[in-house]
Amino acid sequence: MLTQDLSSHTASQLECEESLYKQVAFRISELVEHGTLRPGERVPSVRRCSEQQNVSIATVMQAYRLLESRGVIEARPQSGYYVRAQRWTPPPEPEMSKPAPRAVQVRVSDLVMQVVKAGRDPGLVRLGATLPGAALFPIKELNRTMASVARRSPAAAHNYDPPPGNRALRVQVARRAMEAGCTLSPDDIITTVGATEALNLCLRAVAKPGDVIGIESPTFFGILQIIESLGMRVCEIPTFPRHGVCLDELEERLKCCGVKACVFTPNFSNPLGSCMPDEKKRKLVKMLAEHKIPLIEDDIYGNLCFGPTRPKVAKAFDEEGWVMLCDSFTKTLSPGYRVGWVAPGRFRDRVEFLKFVNTSGTASLPQMAIAEFLQNGGYDAHLRKMRRFYATQVQRMTEAVSRYFPEGTKVTRPTGGMCLWTELPPHINSLAVYEQAMAAKITIAPGPLFSAKQKFQNFIRLNCGNSWSDEVEDAIRTLGRIIHAQPGANGAPQQNGN
Amino acid sequence: MLTQDLSSHTASQLECEESLYKQVAFRISELVEHGTLRPGERVPSVRRCSEQQNVSIATVMQAYRLLESRGVIEARPQSGYYVRAQRWTPPPEPEMSKPAPRAVQVRVSDLVMQVVKAGRDPGLVRLGATLPGAALFPIKELNRTMASVARRSPAAAHNYDPPPGNRALRVQVARRAMEAGCTLSPDDIITTVGATEALNLCLRAVAKPGDVIGIESPTFFGILQIIESLGMRVCEIPTFPRHGVCLDELEERLKCCGVKACVFTPNFSNPLGSCMPDEKKRKLVKMLAEHKIPLIEDDIYGNLCFGPTRPKVAKAFDEEGWVMLCDSFTKTLSPGYRVGWVAPGRFRDRVEFLKFVNTSGTASLPQMAIAEFLQNGGYDAHLRKMRRFYATQVQRMTEAVSRYFPEGTKVTRPTGGMCLWTELPPHINSLAVYEQAMAAKITIAPGPLFSAKQKFQNFIRLNCGNSWSDEVEDAIRTLGRIIHAQPGANGAPQQNGN
Repeated sequence: MLTQDLSSHTASQLECEESLYKQVAFRISELVEHGTLRPGERVPSVRRCSEQQNVSIATVMQAYRLLESRGVIEARPQSGYYVRAQRWTPPPEPEMSKPAPRAVQVRVSDLVMQVVKAGRDPGLVRLGATLPGAALFPIKELNRTMASVARRSPAAAHNYDPPPGNRALRVQVARRAMEAGCTLSPDDIITTVGATEALNLCLRAVAKPGDVIGIESPTFFGILQIIESLGMRVCEIPTFPRHGVCLDELEERLKCCGVKACVFTPNFSNPLGSCMPDEKKRKLVKMLAEHKIPLIEDDIYGNLCFGPTRPKVAKAFDEEGWVMLCDSFTKTLSPGYRVGWVAPGRFRDRVEFLKFVNTSGTASLPQMAIAEFLQNGGYDAHLRKMRRFYATQVQRMTEAVSRYFPEGTKVTRPTGGMCLWTELPPHINSLAVYEQAMAAKITIAPGPLFSAKQKFQNFIRLNCGNSWSDEVEDAIRTLGRIIHAQPGANGAPQQNGN
Repeated sequence: MLTQDLSSHTASQLECEESLYKQVAFRISELVEHGTLRPGERVPSVRRCSEQQNVSIATVMQAYRLLESRGVIEARPQSGYYVRAQRWTPPPEPEMSKPAPRAVQVRVSDLVMQVVKAGRDPGLVRLGATLPGAALFPIKELNRTMASVARRSPAAAHNYDPPPGNRALRVQVARRAMEAGCTLSPDDIITTVGATEALNLCLRAVAKPGDVIGIESPTFFGILQIIESLGMRVCEIPTFPRHGVCLDELEERLKCCGVKACVFTPNFSNPLGSCMPDEKKRKLVKMLAEHKIPLIEDDIYGNLCFGPTRPKVAKAFDEEGWVMLCDSFTKTLSPGYRVGWVAPGRFRDRVEFLKFVNTSGTASLPQMAIAEFLQNGGYDAHLRKMRRFYATQVQRMTEAVSRYFPEGTKVTRPTGGMCLWTELPPHINSLAVYEQAMAAKITIAPGPLFSAKQKFQNFIRLNCGNSWSDEVEDAIRTLGRIIHAQPGANGAPQQNGN
């Protein structure tokens, strides 16, 4: 199997090169999965594999790094790569969600605020909010850059920066968008107070109170809260844990539910970590454009891919301007700077107007500092560091869950982002687990936060953003004990909890 | 008249002391107005006046400084105060506005955006937007403070600062609110992205699309835009150029127009510069509370009083939590920091929720820098400087208008803020004036921006925020020529343009 020639797939495009290493990695991991390569055994050397597969050395290196970051293989100094000795079978995956096909009011904010506020106690082990560990951010460099910018451009640092916002930053964003397959000009972009404001502005630009918004199921509670606060309703679309919304189901529901716009996170959705394949993105964009339905694309995790190349955005396939791409530097540079941006396509002018009336402008100095930080070129190296970090964290969290949680637990297989969506055995009430975890000084995000009607009763989302430590390991162990002690924790038949 | 004993008014409260100097100033200016004291004549020495009026030396000094800042008297070194030689009669004042007593849709945003965007050309003389001159801000101190805070608290500077926002800043805001007659605890306050976000959140907290909002007439176009963007309607209340909304008219319209909330600027409203007397504020707050109608109070100009003491806020008279006080540091410290705050009274929790979903939080570092700047104690001295500056600017702009604009022009008598609301002779179309001024590289804000239905056709608002210069003087002269050249500029009978 390993010797099968992959060169027929290559062609000359970079695009194919990028997916090639994933195919190599997939083949190796299949050999491990099926026992052809066993724990402790040496995998073919990079050169050997390159010859066998008829791919470049670089491609094999990429594939091996990916496998390493997933915990499948490990490097031994001066010796090569080996299948990890403590090879374990990860828990099974949750199935596609099956929300009811109708428009519903969102009623989740009271619960969310309660959980969010309780989670701020600094004495807690934070497995709730998707907060990156502060140690990951290039704080010193950013501080230095900001002080320098403020000194050199004192007036600009204190003046209003009205929409569309800082031009140097928009130039950098446009340049970087190319990596995500997207051709944007600086004038297509409007800076915002984080992706949160961007999502608000987009929703307000294309829908009004009472309108129905299509969302993934489960979806990030922040999106549900925004929709609730705007008096809009949702239609939850069945979603695959690996590849995002089911397009057939989406097509059906577009017809029956009067969907006015969609808010999706095609890359590493929160909480699923799902990543929609390019071809599916293309179909999605085409389908929505045919229905003249705007797609509000949240890509805040797009840069946090575990592989070396970030996936394309749906916006990359947008020919008619129906995709409104929202992003921010919150998850990669600084949550406190509150700098995000939106490329609203055909709704640009409306979004710019709403930005102007919502907050007048984004704070000047943080925009200037980020623009300069990006210009100076340290961002890519920084992203690589973050990606490796999160890949390891998610892997460790998955291992810990499989060690400590009861049989019947299922977890997602995220290929980016920082969260693990965990399905507990049916009949387990994650709100009860949440309460008991809080009493033990551990926060988690209970499943009901992630749907309009508080479904996903037996799910929890785990944040993998913290550096791994004995404290985190202990917290997962404690969490496992709490779950084991729940009525119905052991031996009940498995089923989809939605 | 001057010898009349004022001590009967004193009592012992600071409050009375504060208004006393204004009475002294008023009496002196009346003597000048009536010709008892003539240009070039010496006014009574401070000691003499103190004896005559039976008030303290400090009170007389305050009164004289106020008169000096208004251009009524001038100090001559080693000699005392004199009535200014080039004494002139200011143009008459506009009358109370008379908007129709009904709820109307707001349709002004397209015009506003056009004017706002055109006004950004750096080659223009900016008499349009109410932008303070950049030279006025303590930029160096703020930069230093920010760099120092970032160095000392790197994690806090980059972490999320979720609502209600930076505690140190809220402590400072609460302390300073005492000066405005207001007892607030830090927990009553939520920080925001400028007053703009605060106003948005307040409106969304208490009203929904289609609801009717009571506003001053004329009112700041930014408020009109927010209301328009939220799909709400307005009921414009007749407003006196000196003392704010007419309470009798307000009471009538509360009954007939189904007003759901009011947005007023009791202190130095934009564009009128009106300041509501304390007793009137008390009545206003009482009336609205009886109707259970929230008052959204915009106080961004409250600190920019021309006298030495800032006026109270309406919130000072709020016993039942119906007043939602909005403010920011945009006009006094840094527009680019985008830091504001709101004390939403009984609607606190709802506003906090909306803040959370609108922008997640306010940028951390600007909040920290302002908190520290306030703690360090330089703010009061800075405010005194700004107040003197604006008092002089408004005075000079008034003089220039009376020099260059045609007979029949009327201007307001602001006692704070930075704008002059100017009524041109009737039949003059301020939009035509605006177009011709733009062609001459001068921006102004035409009157139609300040009402829901684009009334105030023959009004313009002049920004006095720039340092006086030959360029500004020339611009007013040019503006005068343009206005003189309009059809109907000279000799037509005067009437209220609204």
